[in-house]
This record gives sequence, structure tokens and C-alpha cells, in this order.
Amino acid sequence: MRKAKVYIALLHYPMYNKRMDTITTSVTNLDLHDISRVARTYDVERFFVVHPSPGQHRLVEEIVSYWQQGFGGSYNPDRKEAFSRLQIADNLGEVLAVIEDETGLQPDTVATDARVYPNTVSYKRMKDEIHNSARPFLILFGTGWGMEKGLMDSCTYVLEPIEGDAGYNHLSVRSAVSIIIDRLLGGRWFE
Amino acid sequence: MRKAKVYIALLHYPMYNKRMDTITTSVTNLDLHDISRVARTYDVERFFVVHPSPGQHRLVEEIVSYWQQGFGGSYNPDRKEAFSRLQIADNLGEVLAVIEDETGLQPDTVATDARVYPNTVSYKRMKDEIHNSARPFLILFGTGWGMEKGLMDSCTYVLEPIEGDAGYNHLSVRSAVSIIIDRLLGGRWFE
Repeated sequence: MRKAKVYIALLHYPMYNKRMDTITTSVTNLDLHDISRVARTYDVERFFVVHPSPGQHRLVEEIVSYWQQGFGGSYNPDRKEAFSRLQIADNLGEVLAVIEDETGLQPDTVATDARVYPNTVSYKRMKDEIHNSARPFLILFGTGWGMEKGLMDSCTYVLEPIEGDAGYNHLSVRSAVSIIIDRLLGGRWFE
Repeated sequence: MRKAKVYIALLHYPMYNKRMDTITTSVTNLDLHDISRVARTYDVERFFVVHPSPGQHRLVEEIVSYWQQGFGGSYNPDRKEAFSRLQIADNLGEVLAVIEDETGLQPDTVATDARVYPNTVSYKRMKDEIHNSARPFLILFGTGWGMEKGLMDSCTYVLEPIEGDAGYNHLSVRSAVSIIIDRLLGGRWFE
């Protein structure tokens, strides 16, 4: 039984593009579906979709309301259940404030990146930390070509790349979230 | 170092819909992207997209050619590299014949399902089998509400559900492929 409450945030700013310019990325419909379903499966408290633009907030609200109140909700109640974990936020500060409000504690932040950083930790250690700590954890996922360095440096932990030896670090964020959450929060199938 | 050659197939027929009628599902664009990228990352020999309809074959060819020969290929060579693992097939028999042709051996087939079957095996055992066997393995993934029972029964192995205790078994096929391939073919991060 896990002690820590775990939250996920999918960030769209500040991200790099392939030329390492800082950009804002657009919301991708299937990110919302796939990550909400992962959040429900692995009992993640909340999946925050973080975007600075009100227009993108309206797009997310429209998609979610179809699966909550619209035809989608009655046709597929499993999707409705998954989307109940999704919450929109303007920026990371707002997410941290919501978690602190809810738990009375500042969360430790865990970033994920295909690159290696000095404060990189292993999945094994992170899984143990999460299972034994009473502190809340917020796991951050980037879009585009990854999170800006300043944001990475501000995190409590940075997870090691998923398959460091593969010679190819270009999984979709949907795959990365699925694999990382399975490693950190999944049952101990390997024992 | 893994001995076995591993192949993936994404099947669109014969699948169940939510009323358990047998149906053919449509190809989903992001399945092609996400699963090709997983195949490249985890060194899967080939990702077969299996569909009976020539119209759907043309759709897949059009998407892949944009990322191979079109603008996408020069803009994003990582995607081009991932898509080089994708191959279209009409049916499972054709996939099995290609693998037998290539390896000189009939592959063991491994099905995955959110339901439990009598021949269900654990991830730990399956990972060991794959790492120690010289036989090729073909891992089958379904779409819609899952593979028809006759197809499941024909498989050498059926993997246990991903998170059997979660009370919610509705991950996207993109998430399921990512997690299952990470468990079976990924590095031993848990040791």
C-alpha cells in the first residue's frame, strides 16, 4: 500500500522545439485520453493539463465535457471515470498551490527527460521513495522536444531516461507517461 | 543480451465491440506513430499493422510515406527511423509466414488482454522465456474491446492483465503496448 499521494502534470510551456527555442506547444487530444486512463488505472490523484492559453483551456473543456456530459459519457462510462481525474491549470505554480491546499504539504517534484541531468535518480530509488514517503509527489511531463532547462533544474528529482542504452530516445509522451507510471506506481510483477 | 527475435502485430480483425459483436476496427494514426517508436526503442524486429481492407492499407501507406519520403522525413528523421520498422499485412497468417520465412522457425504467439484466460502467464516468466529462447516471438495486440476468443485460444501464451488489482482495465492500446514491451524487453531497472 503506497503512502504518498501522487499527481501528474502535462506541461505545454516552457518547452523546447527541435532547434532548442523556447515555445508553447498545443494540446493533443489523445494525450488527454491516454493519460487520464493511466491516471485512473494507477490511482494517480489528479492529472493536471497545464497550458497558459485560455483558448486551449476551452478546447480541453470541450473534449472533456463530451466524455463527461455528452454522448461519450453515456456510451463509454469508463472514459467518463478516467476524465474525472483531469484538471486544467494555467501554470506550474497553480498546480503546486492546489496540491499544497489539498494535502497541507509542498510536493516533491519529479521531472522526466530523455537527457541525463546531474540530479538524475533511478526508477528503483524513486519507486521506494514514493512508496515509503508521506509527502505528496508531482510528476512532470513535457511536450515538444522537452522541458526548458531552468524548469528541469527547479525540480527535486530528475528521473533517468527510460531506456538509456537504446540509442533512440524518442518515445511519445503518451508512451513515456505509461511506462514511467507503470515503473513507479505499478505492482511488483518482477518479483 | 536477448536471444529471441521479437515481433509485434496490431490487429484490427476479429475484434469485439462493447456489445461483444465481432467487428473490424479502423486504423488510428497515433497508434502507428507511438507503436513504431516503441518498436525502435526496444529493438522489436518489425511492427505489423494487420488489417483486411485495402483502403485502410492505402491510408497507412500514405501516412508512412509522408514520414519516410515526404516533408516529415526530412523534418523529423527520428520518426522516419521508427517507421522503417512498420509493415502492413492482411491477416495473422501472412504475418506468421513472413516471420517463418525470415527466421526459419514458427514463432510462439503471445496475446495480451484485459481479461484473464486459463493459459495466462506472468510478465516475469514471459520476460525470462524471451531472454533465454532462440525461438522468435510474436506479441499480438488487439483494438476495439479486445480480440475474439477463438484468436486468444489459438495463442501459445496469454499475458496476465497489466494491473489486475486496479479495478479498472481500460488503458489505450498505445499505453498497453508501451507498458508490456517495457516489461518484457526493457532493461532490468528494478534490480
